[in-house]
Parts: sequence; C-alpha cells; structure tokens
Amino acid sequence: MMPASPIRKLVPFSEEAKKRGTKVYHLNIGQPDIETPENVMNTIRNIDLKVLEYSHSAGLISYRKKLVEYYKRVGIDVTTEEMIVTTGGSEAILFALNSCLDPGDEIIIPEPFYANYNGFAMTSGVVVKPIDSVIENGFALPPMSAFEQAITPRTKAIMICNPNNPTGYLYSKDELESLRKIVLEHDLFLFSDEVYREFTYDGRQHFSVMNLEGIDDNVILLDSISKRYSACGARIGVLISKNKEVICTAMKFAQARLSPPTFGQIAGEEAINTPDSYFTRVLEEYHDRRNIVVESINKMPGCFCPVPGGAFYAVARLPIDDSDKFCQWLLEDFSFEGQTVMLAPATGFYSTKGRGLDEVRISYVLNVNDLKKAMKCLEEALKVYPGRKVTH
Amino acid sequence: MMPASPIRKLVPFSEEAKKRGTKVYHLNIGQPDIETPENVMNTIRNIDLKVLEYSHSAGLISYRKKLVEYYKRVGIDVTTEEMIVTTGGSEAILFALNSCLDPGDEIIIPEPFYANYNGFAMTSGVVVKPIDSVIENGFALPPMSAFEQAITPRTKAIMICNPNNPTGYLYSKDELESLRKIVLEHDLFLFSDEVYREFTYDGRQHFSVMNLEGIDDNVILLDSISKRYSACGARIGVLISKNKEVICTAMKFAQARLSPPTFGQIAGEEAINTPDSYFTRVLEEYHDRRNIVVESINKMPGCFCPVPGGAFYAVARLPIDDSDKFCQWLLEDFSFEGQTVMLAPATGFYSTKGRGLDEVRISYVLNVNDLKKAMKCLEEALKVYPGRKVTH
Repeated sequence: MMPASPIRKLVPFSEEAKKRGTKVYHLNIGQPDIETPENVMNTIRNIDLKVLEYSHSAGLISYRKKLVEYYKRVGIDVTTEEMIVTTGGSEAILFALNSCLDPGDEIIIPEPFYANYNGFAMTSGVVVKPIDSVIENGFALPPMSAFEQAITPRTKAIMICNPNNPTGYLYSKDELESLRKIVLEHDLFLFSDEVYREFTYDGRQHFSVMNLEGIDDNVILLDSISKRYSACGARIGVLISKNKEVICTAMKFAQARLSPPTFGQIAGEEAINTPDSYFTRVLEEYHDRRNIVVESINKMPGCFCPVPGGAFYAVARLPIDDSDKFCQWLLEDFSFEGQTVMLAPATGFYSTKGRGLDEVRISYVLNVNDLKKAMKCLEEALKVYPGRKVTH
Repeated sequence: MMPASPIRKLVPFSEEAKKRGTKVYHLNIGQPDIETPENVMNTIRNIDLKVLEYSHSAGLISYRKKLVEYYKRVGIDVTTEEMIVTTGGSEAILFALNSCLDPGDEIIIPEPFYANYNGFAMTSGVVVKPIDSVIENGFALPPMSAFEQAITPRTKAIMICNPNNPTGYLYSKDELESLRKIVLEHDLFLFSDEVYREFTYDGRQHFSVMNLEGIDDNVILLDSISKRYSACGARIGVLISKNKEVICTAMKFAQARLSPPTFGQIAGEEAINTPDSYFTRVLEEYHDRRNIVVESINKMPGCFCPVPGGAFYAVARLPIDDSDKFCQWLLEDFSFEGQTVMLAPATGFYSTKGRGLDEVRISYVLNVNDLKKAMKCLEEALKVYPGRKVTH
C-alpha cells in the first residue's frame, strides 16, 4: 500500500482549526512564500503560441540549451543529449528508479529522507533500505560502514538529497568523495537530488555529484526549478546523466508520457535569465529565517535544532512523546493568542518504525515576523503539551 | 524492457528525408494542427499570480468545479470529490493501473490499441492481454466470448478507448452494455479512455461508460484536454471514479507527485468556456478530412479503410508486406514531386506479434489541401513499392 503523505495527513485538522477561528502558521510544507521572479511571469504573459503543442519528449530543445548554460554557470558540464526534462523533480525520480532498477532491487537512502521517495519506490517496485543519519551530528552522511552493511546482491543504487530535505544538511566534498568510492567499489548508481543547490548559508559551497571523478556512468542528477525560482506549480524538473544507456531507457518512459508541460518549460527557460539580485535577496531572507528558527528552538528547554547548512528545512528534537500526536494536538487542542503552528512530524521521513518520534520538520517558508510568532506558539505549546517528556 | 514508441521510431528517417529536401506530410502523430481556442491563450496572457504555487494534489478546486459543469453538459454526473486532475491523460492511465491492479495482474485490451498503454502497463508491472478486433467490421468491440476466453484469475480490468485511437471506432451503447454485463459478472474494473469524446461524425452520439447502470464502483474514466481543445502541451487530464477506495488510493499517488501543472489547469478551466462555434468549426474540418482519407484510400487498388465514427485516426489495410518496412521506405527511398508521407506502422498498436503488418494508422491532422497531396503520395508510393503484395 502507498503510504499517506506525512505533510498532508494533518490537513483536515488544520482546516478544523481554521474553522474555529485559529490562525495556523504553516511550517509543514515546502511551498515557499517567495515571489516567482517577475521576468518569468512576464514571459508567460507575453506568450505567443497559436497551438499549444506537445514538446519533444526530452523537453524543448531551446530549454535544454538554456539548461546547458545554467549548469555551466554552476560548474556542471553537460550537453542537451544528457538531459531529459521532466514533469517536476518527482518524475525525474520516478524515471531514474524505473530506468536503473528492477522491481525487487534495493536502493540505500540515509534517513530521514524526503517522504515521497517512498511513494516513487513503491510505484516502481523498488525496495528502500534506510540507514541512520542522526541529529547529534546534524544528520551528516552516515559512516561508510553503515553503507557497507546495508549492501546486498540486490542493491543497485544509493540516493542522497543535497542540501537535504528534511534535515537541511549540506554534504561536504569529503563526504561525497567517500560515496564515490563505495559507488565505484560496488558498481552502484548514485542518485543525487540537488533541487536546493542554490540554498546554502554561511558562505558554504555546494558540491555536485556531477563533479565527482571517474563515476560518470554511475551518477544520475535529479533537479527541479520548483524551489530555485519559487515555481513549484510549473512542474518542471530534469534528469541528467552521462550514462547513455540510462538516458536511452529513461527516454522510453519519457516518450510514453509524451512530453513535459509546455508553459512550464517556457517559464523554466526564462527563469535562467533571472538576475543574481533576486537570489541575493532570497538567500538573505532564508538565512535570517533559519537563524530565527534555530536560535528560538535551541533556547526552548529540552529542545535541540542543529544548524542546517542549506535548503529551507530544519529537523528539531523536542521533548515530546510522539511527534504525530504532538503535531495533531497543536492543531486540535492548542492555541496561543488565537494562533497555532502546523509542523510535519518527522516520523513520516523515516522508514524505520519508531524513529523520529521526538522530532519535527520545520519548513521556514514564512516571513520573519510570522516565523517569530510561530516559534512563540511552539514555545508556549511545549509548556503545556500533556505528552511532554520530563527528561531527555 | 520498455518498447520504443511506434510513432517516434521513424523520426530519424523523416529528419533524413527533410535534409534531402523532401517535404514530409506528417500523418503519423496525434498532434492536431488546430489552433488552441483564443480565450484559453488569452487567459494565460492575463495571468495574475505572484507565486506559482503547487495546486491541491487533486487539482485546483476552481478547476474541478468547472469540470463538474463540463461533465454535466455532456451528460455525466460527477462531483469534485470523484476526480483527480492529472498531468495529461497519461498520468490518469498510470494512476488507474497503479491504484486498481497489482504487479502481475492482467488487463484485457482489444487490439490494436494506443501504444503507450504498453509503456504504462510496463511501469506498473501489469500484464496486457490483447484480444482481437478486426478491420473487416471497422474494429468493432470483439465478441464477449473473446473476453470470456481471455479472463483468468489474475484479470482485474478491461480497458477501452472510445472513440478509439488508433482505429477511430466509436463504440455503440449496445457494445458498452455487453461490457457492463461482463464487468459485473467477473467483478472487473472498466477503464475507459474518452479523450476524443467530442470527435464524432455523421450525427452519431458518444455514450460514456459513466452512464452504464449499476457499475459505479467498477468504472474509471480517463480523460484529457489535449485533443478536445488542441492543448496537448498543457499536460492536463483527469481520472474520475465513483469508487471511493480507488480515488483514495489514487490520491496517494497524486500526493507523491505533489500537483498537476498550475498553468495547464488555468488553461483547462478557461477551456470549458470555449464557445460551441469553435467545436462546430473543428468538427466540420475533421469530418472533411476523414472523408478525404477514407475515400482516397478506398479508391486505391487493394486498399481498404473502414469509415471511423470518431477521433481523428483511421487504420487502413494496404497491399504491403510489412508496414514497418513500408513506412520507413516512404521516408528513405520514396518521393513524388519532392514530397512524401509519414505514417505510423500499425504493428506498434498490436501487442500480438505479426498483427498489423499490412496496416497503417493515419492521423488526419493536416489541412484538406495537404491531406490530398499526402494521399496522392501514398497512392503513387503503393504503385512502386517493392514489397507490394500482388493479391490480397
């Protein structure tokens, strides 16, 4: 059975809370409040098409050429033949699984991980083998011994998300080099979801798996414009690989679904012209938000939130019995000055049962003022939550 | 292994033909040349969005409400809760297969059938069991005995496309009533792809499986705006069912991929306001085209083309040895007055090996003048094709 989405299952409770007149701060979802760049929306408004046709199954060639430019700018060298434009990053993940693994094959993913990986694995009959990353070191890459132990004859791939959703952890070049070794040694695919590439803080640099040497045939890059340009609704992603066989197989899946959305591709093509000033502003904003979340939580008794190096998520440990119950209680039974906060229970990001019970994911997708109020709600909530753990 | 798309595998040959200066009439693809309604494109041009957000995973509620209106107009009674907006009809098919069948389960489909059904079945691990429909009766629904013979303990569904791609056949109410009986008797799902609903000719009426009585829990309607409004690039379809359990499961797949494209949904919502005059014009145009194709082919010695009741496709029998070879030869070795025609070998629409060797699919997606020239090319080609069969 397909698991229910961990960030959606509480929606009925938030609807109820709103009906009771409670203001709900949504820190549960990855939908940024940041405006889509104006040049992107203007391009759509100036669209000059008579027939809204299918595009090439691999995406409009003009868009792919522009993507080559974009990747060159971020230090990644690819050609239009090495990419397939997809319907969101979601489809890129599905194509990668379908193209590289057979049903029953295994993929190793450090947990907590983006919950929808489970759904796509289920769709393609692939078995997710989680290995532990832990809050104590900020969810760094698990040691190579943990990977080694998880590898079986059916293991075909390792998947990472960098910077990570839900933890915000930014993998270092050294960590990626260790992955390179293990991937080579066991001849595995390395899937890297890098949709948050631009979102790094404190002057840290993102290092792409595309720049790991000697594993061109192993690496599959999964990407999306959703977060980069606050264009989630465009549903445009891309699957990139230098492995010709993978691209050839993925193309068959791409042809079966005909083409990615045309409007979204036009938006994506223009998005690459977005001026740097847009990102500077956005990054400053997220940086401030991150600091508010991390500092607020670390001041709350019994709480711990590591400082994320990227993305716009953080996983925090709270003195609670059960994050599902707590997040539901926040919506059902709690309010502070007519307000409450909606968080994502971390349990949904673990595939090992019992993990994440005292953790929540916080998406810092609200402005600084709202975020401060949301943190105040959380602080007050923890004071009165009946399932509060006394010691930690 | 995923099969290559039958309508795309000849593309390199058409590219070569064009390089040699030959004009190629494309009757191989289902991309209409008809203009997208102006009101639809204008709505996109007037779009007023600051943040291009995800929509609800089941689709924008405003669009679903509008769809309820549309379906009421065509005599189908559904609610916003009974539908999930999808990324093209393609995704609706995939969700239906994933939600109603387990890997290894079987689905019966009269062949020839839309080739991409194979790709989606492969993705979801479902086994397609083809049964014969034949050109002699215009590809009518196979007799119930053929369905009965194909049913095994693993059979979970029957799938039809009505009007049919590739044959253009429009199933009668009587034929659908027979399906109703068999579906009830064996408790099967009935998937109906009705994306060509509006494209019917000679005053014939489309009858939807949604109006078959007593099988609400069995019926899954698959639909798309691609052909209806010549909006293939919008990538907007819908899965409809009164079976709550199916909708609930399909929603999990929908949530995993987050949402269908926002721009496309905005286009789809406006498309429902398209004036009737648009369709009257379009239908007249297709009607004329259909007659040109059917009449031209039936005049060619040894050829037979049944009169399709709907869609914009026809399957014709030609006096040829092998439709793959013939269609490739048309592009590689033939031209008449500097022109040739690209057709889809019917073999790709059969899953039974050896069927369709003397058949081609013709999409009448070109204007009347070009279509006449294309038919002239076909006529001349058949006179000189080295693989021509002497008798038939």
